[in-house]
Amino acid sequence: MGQQIKEERADAAVRQRLLAAALDSFTRKGYAATSVREIVAAAGVTKPVLYYYFGSKEGIYLELMNGTYALFAERLNLLATGRGSARERLTAFCTGCFDGFVEHVQVVRLIYSLYFGPSQGAPPFPYEEPFDRMLEILAGFVRDGIAAGELVAVNEKDATWAIISCLNTVMEEQLCHTPPRIDREGLVRILNLILDGFSQGVKP
Amino acid sequence: MGQQIKEERADAAVRQRLLAAALDSFTRKGYAATSVREIVAAAGVTKPVLYYYFGSKEGIYLELMNGTYALFAERLNLLATGRGSARERLTAFCTGCFDGFVEHVQVVRLIYSLYFGPSQGAPPFPYEEPFDRMLEILAGFVRDGIAAGELVAVNEKDATWAIISCLNTVMEEQLCHTPPRIDREGLVRILNLILDGFSQGVKP
Repeated sequence: MGQQIKEERADAAVRQRLLAAALDSFTRKGYAATSVREIVAAAGVTKPVLYYYFGSKEGIYLELMNGTYALFAERLNLLATGRGSARERLTAFCTGCFDGFVEHVQVVRLIYSLYFGPSQGAPPFPYEEPFDRMLEILAGFVRDGIAAGELVAVNEKDATWAIISCLNTVMEEQLCHTPPRIDREGLVRILNLILDGFSQGVKP
Repeated sequence: MGQQIKEERADAAVRQRLLAAALDSFTRKGYAATSVREIVAAAGVTKPVLYYYFGSKEGIYLELMNGTYALFAERLNLLATGRGSARERLTAFCTGCFDGFVEHVQVVRLIYSLYFGPSQGAPPFPYEEPFDRMLEILAGFVRDGIAAGELVAVNEKDATWAIISCLNTVMEEQLCHTPPRIDREGLVRILNLILDGFSQGVKP
C-alpha cells in the first residue's frame, strides 16, 4: 500500500471517529451543551485535529448534516426509480424510507430535536428537504397510478398527504416509543388499507 | 372585594406570570440553558417568589406540563362525547384536536423538543398520554362506525392508525413549517378521502 493511500485511510478514519463522537454528544447532551473539548476527547485526538478537518463545532455539525442528507437524497433518488404497479411502487418507497429512517435513527433524533426544539445556536440547515422530496416522489406515483387507471381519480395532493402521513407517523413511532406501537408490517397494512380505498374499495 | 379574594387573585397573577416567563425561556433557549434567575427577572419578581410557588426549576416545569396536560385531557374527554355518524364524530374529534394543538402551539413545541431531543435534565414526564388517549377514542369511533354499518369491516387498529397518522402529521406541520403546506381544511379533506375508502368507496 502506497504512503499516500495509507495517509488517506488514516485521514478518513479520524474524520469518522470525530463525526461519530460529535453525533453521540449532540444527541445525548444537545448541541449547545456539547464542547469541542468533549468531542476530541471522545475521539481520542486533540483540538487542532478537529479544527483542521472541520474548522469549528459548527463545521463538524454541518458536515454531519450534509453527509447524512446526501445519503438520504441518494436513497430517495434510488427509491424514486421503483417499478411495478402504483401500489408496489408506493409500498416499496415507504418501506425503503422506513428502513433508512431506522438505520439512521440516532442522527434522525438529532435532526428532530433541532428542528422541533430551539436551534441552540446550531447553524441553520434545510432540514425539510427530504420531506419535500418524499412528497414530490409520492405525488408522482399517485399521478401515474391514476393515469394508469389503478387508482380512482382522487385528488392527487390529498392522496399524497394521506400516504406520507402514515409513513411519517409510523417512522416517528420508532424514534421514541419503547416498544413502538406500530412497526414496518403495520405500515404496510395501513398503506394497503388506504390504497384499497383509493382503488377498488376496501374489502370487508 | 375582600382582602382574601384580592390576595388570591394577586397570587394567581404572579403564578401565571412566572409560568409564562418559564415557558418563554424553555422554548426559546431550551430547558437546560434556562436559569431561575432569568425566569424571575422576566416575571418581575425575586427568586424566593418562584421557590415559594414552585419549589425549583423542575417544579415550575412540572406545573407547566401538568397544567397543560390537564387542559388536553379535559378537551379530549369533551371531544370523546361527540355525537352523530362515525364520519361526523371522527372529523369533529380530529379538528378539535387540531384546534387545541394550534391554540397551545408554544407549549407543544417545548413538549416536542424534550420528547424528541435530549431530556436536558428536565424531570421525566408521561409525554405520550394524550396520544394514547387519542388512539383509544378514535378506535372507539371506528368500532362504533363498523358496528353501525357506516364503515366496512376494516381492521379497527389499522384504520385507527391511518386516521391518527393524518391528524398527527397535519398538526406537526403547524409546529415548524412556514407557511404550513397543509392546514385544517386539508386535514378534513384527507380524512374524508380515507373515510370514503373505509365506507362506500372513493368517488372519482
